[in-house]
Amino acid sequence: MNDQRITMAHGDGGEQAHQLIEEVFLKAFGYNGEPLMDAACVKVTDRIAVSTDSFVIKPIFFPGGNIGKIAVAGTVNDIAVSGAVPMYITAGFILEEGFLIRDLVSIVESMAEEAKKAGVRLISGDTKVVERGSADGMFINTTGIGIYQNEIQIHPEAMQEGDSIIISGTIGDHGVTILTARGELGLISDVQSDCASLNHLIREACEGQSGIRIMRDPTRGGLATTLVEICEDFKVTMELDQTALPVRQDVRGACDMLGFDPLYMANEGKVIIITAKESEEYVLKALQSHELGKNAKVIGSITSKDRGQLLLKTPMGTTRRLGRMAGMHLPRIC
Amino acid sequence: MNDQRITMAHGDGGEQAHQLIEEVFLKAFGYNGEPLMDAACVKVTDRIAVSTDSFVIKPIFFPGGNIGKIAVAGTVNDIAVSGAVPMYITAGFILEEGFLIRDLVSIVESMAEEAKKAGVRLISGDTKVVERGSADGMFINTTGIGIYQNEIQIHPEAMQEGDSIIISGTIGDHGVTILTARGELGLISDVQSDCASLNHLIREACEGQSGIRIMRDPTRGGLATTLVEICEDFKVTMELDQTALPVRQDVRGACDMLGFDPLYMANEGKVIIITAKESEEYVLKALQSHELGKNAKVIGSITSKDRGQLLLKTPMGTTRRLGRMAGMHLPRIC
Repeated sequence: MNDQRITMAHGDGGEQAHQLIEEVFLKAFGYNGEPLMDAACVKVTDRIAVSTDSFVIKPIFFPGGNIGKIAVAGTVNDIAVSGAVPMYITAGFILEEGFLIRDLVSIVESMAEEAKKAGVRLISGDTKVVERGSADGMFINTTGIGIYQNEIQIHPEAMQEGDSIIISGTIGDHGVTILTARGELGLISDVQSDCASLNHLIREACEGQSGIRIMRDPTRGGLATTLVEICEDFKVTMELDQTALPVRQDVRGACDMLGFDPLYMANEGKVIIITAKESEEYVLKALQSHELGKNAKVIGSITSKDRGQLLLKTPMGTTRRLGRMAGMHLPRIC
Repeated sequence: MNDQRITMAHGDGGEQAHQLIEEVFLKAFGYNGEPLMDAACVKVTDRIAVSTDSFVIKPIFFPGGNIGKIAVAGTVNDIAVSGAVPMYITAGFILEEGFLIRDLVSIVESMAEEAKKAGVRLISGDTKVVERGSADGMFINTTGIGIYQNEIQIHPEAMQEGDSIIISGTIGDHGVTILTARGELGLISDVQSDCASLNHLIREACEGQSGIRIMRDPTRGGLATTLVEICEDFKVTMELDQTALPVRQDVRGACDMLGFDPLYMANEGKVIIITAKESEEYVLKALQSHELGKNAKVIGSITSKDRGQLLLKTPMGTTRRLGRMAGMHLPRIC
């Protein structure tokens, strides 16, 4: 079915929809022959974490990944930063009539591969088709379910002066990759998206540690917007050291040329971990010994428990306040 | 913000995205002031049911509901027919730039109202914005989580000759409503979508009954396609009595005019319940005593345990085999 395209009949719940499910989705995700029910049944105990995300990234294929890989990794990461172990994932596809089935197969295979890497199982799926011009190629929603197994404990309420802010690697890679891949900016660069599932990295860095305060993955809005949210939600003030921020040379160059700030560029394979000072060394070393965290760095600290501001110390020794991303026009980055 | 429209900045994860979440979503769904995390945490015990669905219905507002109401009810129903009690729901929005915020508010309020009626809690949400022309107004994905509480037990493996097939009311209402609402067919009719959450109805009809074999909600593809799937998955042959099928006069009229068959028209507020013969009377009466099931009827039975065919006995006494919907071109019905 390599050159076949999606038709409206693939979305009507009838014969062709049935074939698409069997030949594309069940094939990629493995299928044990059980009757397909409207709801999947899984066994869990105690507390679960749930997170949903829609992916509208443009272009659908980009250096370092595609919409399928990011749809799995992004939701796995949202679960993992909550301290839960990602276990299950659902996938809802919205396809534009005319979409190449060959591309759909390749995207679905990426999802299956990423799910295997992350150790999550796809338990429910759905496909809808809209007329040509009513969607841009494809959109994917994923919802993840994780189980709290008590090996990773987070204590955001314990955040205090002196706590360390750690980032697991270079910032802005994904954002610059997507802007470059669109070809609109006349930019050429070798940078690849950092798109990856971080659950194993997080587990190695945080399992059994009592000093983990909070974790977040700085996606849309970048590192700065994510930290502003933590500052406001928990009324803590943080100070980042601009000279400590890990930024690839080519990412910095692209941002300088375009007037963007890496602090606001999206990441899809990075985690912020705020830890008690005494856990800093353990967490940092654990991150650095993992392929996905080898460029991990301490980038700042919590300086007080009031106000709720994010501050940046510049190389000149001055300090300025950072806000949420506003008016930067970086659409469809995930 | 009544005349305001969605801009690309509402989707970038920054300041305006933050405002939209606070002023539209949190307002409608109620909010207890806790920090918003990437994943919601809820406590569950033992087995859960999970189901995901994307909604691309056109038009977004239609007699009897809108895309928000159907996105909640549709997923609630997928969970309920599995025998689980729907508890939690997630919502992922894909909005087209320029979408009226007034309409978004009204849709989100419908979701909150339907969630309250069904007794489910929204625990995770996400909003993405795509450029004008890259989506048709709005799409919504919902994922539902239900808990098996053992009060409703289904036993599909026990299906056998003589089991009764019950439908909770008239078929085809939703499909005809949507086709009419599009105005493409030159049809005028008073029919309304049956869009409704069926979990309370199902509970009243099935709780404590040992003879429930299987339940399904016949949405896309209609009653016939849904029954064909059961026949094939469980290798049972069913015979429907055409004269017993409950069809509204105006739905039948519209179908006759357009050359459609009510058996293949979508429903959004109907449940098929297959029961042991001895449970038939209890289930039927329980359905009929509920507002949403007052037109419930026995429409056929399982006639053998092999072949896996769906047969229709016509008023002339002849029998023909029914297949899945194919080539009827009823796109974007949910």
